[in-house]
Amino acid sequence: MAILYDRVALIGLGLIGSSIALALRKNPVCGSVTGFAATPGTRETARELDFCDHVAETVNEAVEDADLVVLCTPVGVMGALTREMAPVLKPGATLSEVGSVKVAVIREVAPHVPDGVTFIPAHPIAGTELSGPRAGFAELFEDRWCLFTPLEGTCEQAVEKLRQFWLGLGARVDTMEPARHDLVLAVTSHVPHLIAYTMVGVADDLRRVSNTEVVEYSAAGFRDFTRIAASDPTMWRDVFVNNSEATLEILGRFTEELFDLQRAIRLGDGDQLHRYFTRTRAIRRGIIEAGQDTGLPDFGRKQSSEG
Amino acid sequence: MAILYDRVALIGLGLIGSSIALALRKNPVCGSVTGFAATPGTRETARELDFCDHVAETVNEAVEDADLVVLCTPVGVMGALTREMAPVLKPGATLSEVGSVKVAVIREVAPHVPDGVTFIPAHPIAGTELSGPRAGFAELFEDRWCLFTPLEGTCEQAVEKLRQFWLGLGARVDTMEPARHDLVLAVTSHVPHLIAYTMVGVADDLRRVSNTEVVEYSAAGFRDFTRIAASDPTMWRDVFVNNSEATLEILGRFTEELFDLQRAIRLGDGDQLHRYFTRTRAIRRGIIEAGQDTGLPDFGRKQSSEG
Repeated sequence: MAILYDRVALIGLGLIGSSIALALRKNPVCGSVTGFAATPGTRETARELDFCDHVAETVNEAVEDADLVVLCTPVGVMGALTREMAPVLKPGATLSEVGSVKVAVIREVAPHVPDGVTFIPAHPIAGTELSGPRAGFAELFEDRWCLFTPLEGTCEQAVEKLRQFWLGLGARVDTMEPARHDLVLAVTSHVPHLIAYTMVGVADDLRRVSNTEVVEYSAAGFRDFTRIAASDPTMWRDVFVNNSEATLEILGRFTEELFDLQRAIRLGDGDQLHRYFTRTRAIRRGIIEAGQDTGLPDFGRKQSSEG
Repeated sequence: MAILYDRVALIGLGLIGSSIALALRKNPVCGSVTGFAATPGTRETARELDFCDHVAETVNEAVEDADLVVLCTPVGVMGALTREMAPVLKPGATLSEVGSVKVAVIREVAPHVPDGVTFIPAHPIAGTELSGPRAGFAELFEDRWCLFTPLEGTCEQAVEKLRQFWLGLGARVDTMEPARHDLVLAVTSHVPHLIAYTMVGVADDLRRVSNTEVVEYSAAGFRDFTRIAASDPTMWRDVFVNNSEATLEILGRFTEELFDLQRAIRLGDGDQLHRYFTRTRAIRRGIIEAGQDTGLPDFGRKQSSEG
């Protein structure tokens, strides 16, 4: 396997950072991997789990001499981090990040990127509800999309090399305009997360139904919401604050449709409900056909949860 | 294993009916099992898959001589079915059903139950997004709750026997007031389903984002919504029409909280969002501890979807 980058620096060692490190162990498309995390406990855990060749004590120690730097932190701190590391970034290096929001990240990061360093925003659409360095696994990116939103005029060779990097980790790569990325993700990820958080919050608030009841009888529907709503609070706070425009637009559409169905329930209009529910089935079939989920009964959960 | 009922009749052979039949093959706590489905194609499939000892051509043929009759149809037809079968129900038999709504089902079914037949409403909280006789599997009820909502004065011996039946299929059994059941299920299942249906509908409507994009990039969040929203439209139409009061109450709470978070996003109030998201994590932990889901990375999906 050809070595794409001699030295890689991963800034942030949560679910995504640790998974990249583990995936690089499995698919050695790079030379040495240095990791850094702002929290001392995370650095300690990273050393214990030993998924990086070296865990640095400072950002600048991690990125100097790195040929590829990947920011794997919540999007809210990416601008400040870039400003901090700018003086020591190696000329010819590539700076990338994995944020779930692109327009705001580009606005915050790009001004600090020094001449001679190529900045390529990228977003691996992969994750679980778990966070932190112990949550990572090498297969996280396999068959998942990584969306690149390169700035105009970016060196094509650098983009191609980063593409090879993500292909090496098992991902598929596509390219998109930053604003379009933020709108598509508002639909497929950001608003669904906000809704799930809200529903779980409602259940928790509702003193008429005990938490025990909610927890015990969660098998139907609610269980999946709690899974989504268990995701990292800091990451998601930053997503909503930094993708507020697209999120609010999709939320507006959502409440409009919800009120329409609510009215059908109030009026007992079974036909309208049936038509609506029949239509939503088709999208599900598309997702299974696109290979982004399994159609197994109980989606294969049974077998492994009993294993 | 002691035989609890000599003859069981399953009316409706979709996901739940076929799973009960398959579970009875695995755990032979009953004598012979007769099935009936209103749709000729479903009866044909049931014969082909051979999960019942006999597939009847009429409801009355299925239930005569049965010691236990279980209605496994959408809740909207349970009243009419009971009226139809009432003349041939065997004295001493137990009539049960598996509907997701209780108050309305009791109101529709109870008046038609003949003297000498014991009616015991029950609700196994288990399911997948798949429907029809091919979707069933014997393990569907294992470690899942089955909630009984018996009417006042119901013969305790008959309830205990039905409890043994569900324990035999691997379920846990609890008892609840019908109205409380409907409220708890509105929170844990009915409103989450309506929300998921709505979100998938919004994605489909939104001409600015193509279905291909939504489908391809659905890994984060939306994927779980489409799974929920792929559930049987007839079953769910009947649930909402028959549990409208509790559903509308919980929906009101939901939109109230959603608007509050929406406002926090608009104002950029990251602290409020972070506090909210932190709180919802705790419920998730409770569900994993209660054994109603797995905490495995990617919730064990990876292993089996690649298998």
